[in-house]
Amino acid sequence: MITSTRNERVRLMRRLHRARHRREAGLTLVEGPEPVAAAIAASADIRWICVSVEDEGSEQIARESGLEYIVVSPAVLEAAAPTRAPRGPIAVVGIPPPGALRRHDTLVLWALTDPGNVGTLIRSAAAFGFDVATIDGSADPWGPRVLRAAAGAHFAVGTIAWLGANPLAELRGAGVTPVAAVPAGGSGPTGLPTSPIGLLVGNEARGLPVEIAESAEHRLTLAMPGGAESLNAAIAGSIAMYLLAYRAPDSATAGAEEHRR
Amino acid sequence: MITSTRNERVRLMRRLHRARHRREAGLTLVEGPEPVAAAIAASADIRWICVSVEDEGSEQIARESGLEYIVVSPAVLEAAAPTRAPRGPIAVVGIPPPGALRRHDTLVLWALTDPGNVGTLIRSAAAFGFDVATIDGSADPWGPRVLRAAAGAHFAVGTIAWLGANPLAELRGAGVTPVAAVPAGGSGPTGLPTSPIGLLVGNEARGLPVEIAESAEHRLTLAMPGGAESLNAAIAGSIAMYLLAYRAPDSATAGAEEHRR
Repeated sequence: MITSTRNERVRLMRRLHRARHRREAGLTLVEGPEPVAAAIAASADIRWICVSVEDEGSEQIARESGLEYIVVSPAVLEAAAPTRAPRGPIAVVGIPPPGALRRHDTLVLWALTDPGNVGTLIRSAAAFGFDVATIDGSADPWGPRVLRAAAGAHFAVGTIAWLGANPLAELRGAGVTPVAAVPAGGSGPTGLPTSPIGLLVGNEARGLPVEIAESAEHRLTLAMPGGAESLNAAIAGSIAMYLLAYRAPDSATAGAEEHRR
Repeated sequence: MITSTRNERVRLMRRLHRARHRREAGLTLVEGPEPVAAAIAASADIRWICVSVEDEGSEQIARESGLEYIVVSPAVLEAAAPTRAPRGPIAVVGIPPPGALRRHDTLVLWALTDPGNVGTLIRSAAAFGFDVATIDGSADPWGPRVLRAAAGAHFAVGTIAWLGANPLAELRGAGVTPVAAVPAGGSGPTGLPTSPIGLLVGNEARGLPVEIAESAEHRLTLAMPGGAESLNAAIAGSIAMYLLAYRAPDSATAGAEEHRR
């Protein structure tokens, strides 16, 4: 049992609390029974699993995985974990290379900064069959708090892509039509193309930049009969994905498009 | 300017960080420009507003409200605030007496424990025209972290009620039909009554108790074409409220019901 935070592996895990070190090492930390089980089931690139000597459930998950694992004292687990009040086990996982955009419905995280929102949206994307893409200025999609909020969904979504300096052009080039989620002034979900959509969800406080919302092919607004005209960004994006996953074939374009669902 | 955390009002604000003291005092803390502005606009029972001497935006909100306010040092604001990295101003607000159930669509928080989820759901309830009810074992709906996540929606929802030992009977007695949100095995949103619904949303990890889900008149499950069968509780509850807010009149019952929307 490892009882010292000066252990080499524990020191590496602690370095991975910082985004810069995660990028340099190409590694991140996946925490909690469901996310770690999802990573195992998806054959993620798990280097080792860290379990507390007092947590039999975690040790069982690690043992049954057949993967290498280390047993540590509760205090060391807490030090190695990226969040307060951690739930074991913790897996050290190689961050997959960024995926390529596919001709597929894609959620575009446009400068969302709250890791809980980003993780929740990735979880919803997995549920509703969306790929995920992110731009500079969003929370690191492979950060530990994002992974925790996503509850294992990183290993279920088709691809997590990074967009460059001209995200809308990249989307269009991949055959994906940009649709801006806007709090007011857009239209409802009917009439959107059945061809793949890139749903742009903006920053929690500022929303999407005006010029991006205006240059997208469509603007989508959720009606709010209660009168309060504000939704959490993860809620708005998730409802939009739900609606888009079930959008009716548009007679004007349906013939030209493969039937995807 | 108040520079000491031993100031009487600052000491009261610090006591309000704890649920027990909030209950005893009947007071809570509302933090951040949008929630405080919403409380002011809704004529909430604001006792005073606390602003940092270095935060002109907060002082402007407080001054323009015509309400009493105190100016404190940044360190005192941080000590008085219920969360880390607080955004001023902070309002000390009387908790309204629990509302009575109405014959109206109602979101029922069934032992949800994450304050962020509870606040986000209250925000969605305000947007989609739902009342809110809670049972023992849920996060305190008037806790500061809940208020922060709700972004002012507490002051926009029709009522926030507390249910007793037999919540389903209470709902039925008020003319509200219990509908259980369940991750699998329920039906879709079509065919639900157009009369008022009590949407039961369960605990993040355990969901609803089986006997509650089974004794509700309907069970509602969201289809998830992506295959991952897991959504964040606040996401699932919010999508369900969105769908229910737009449910089609049911021909079997529509004639007997007032047309509510």
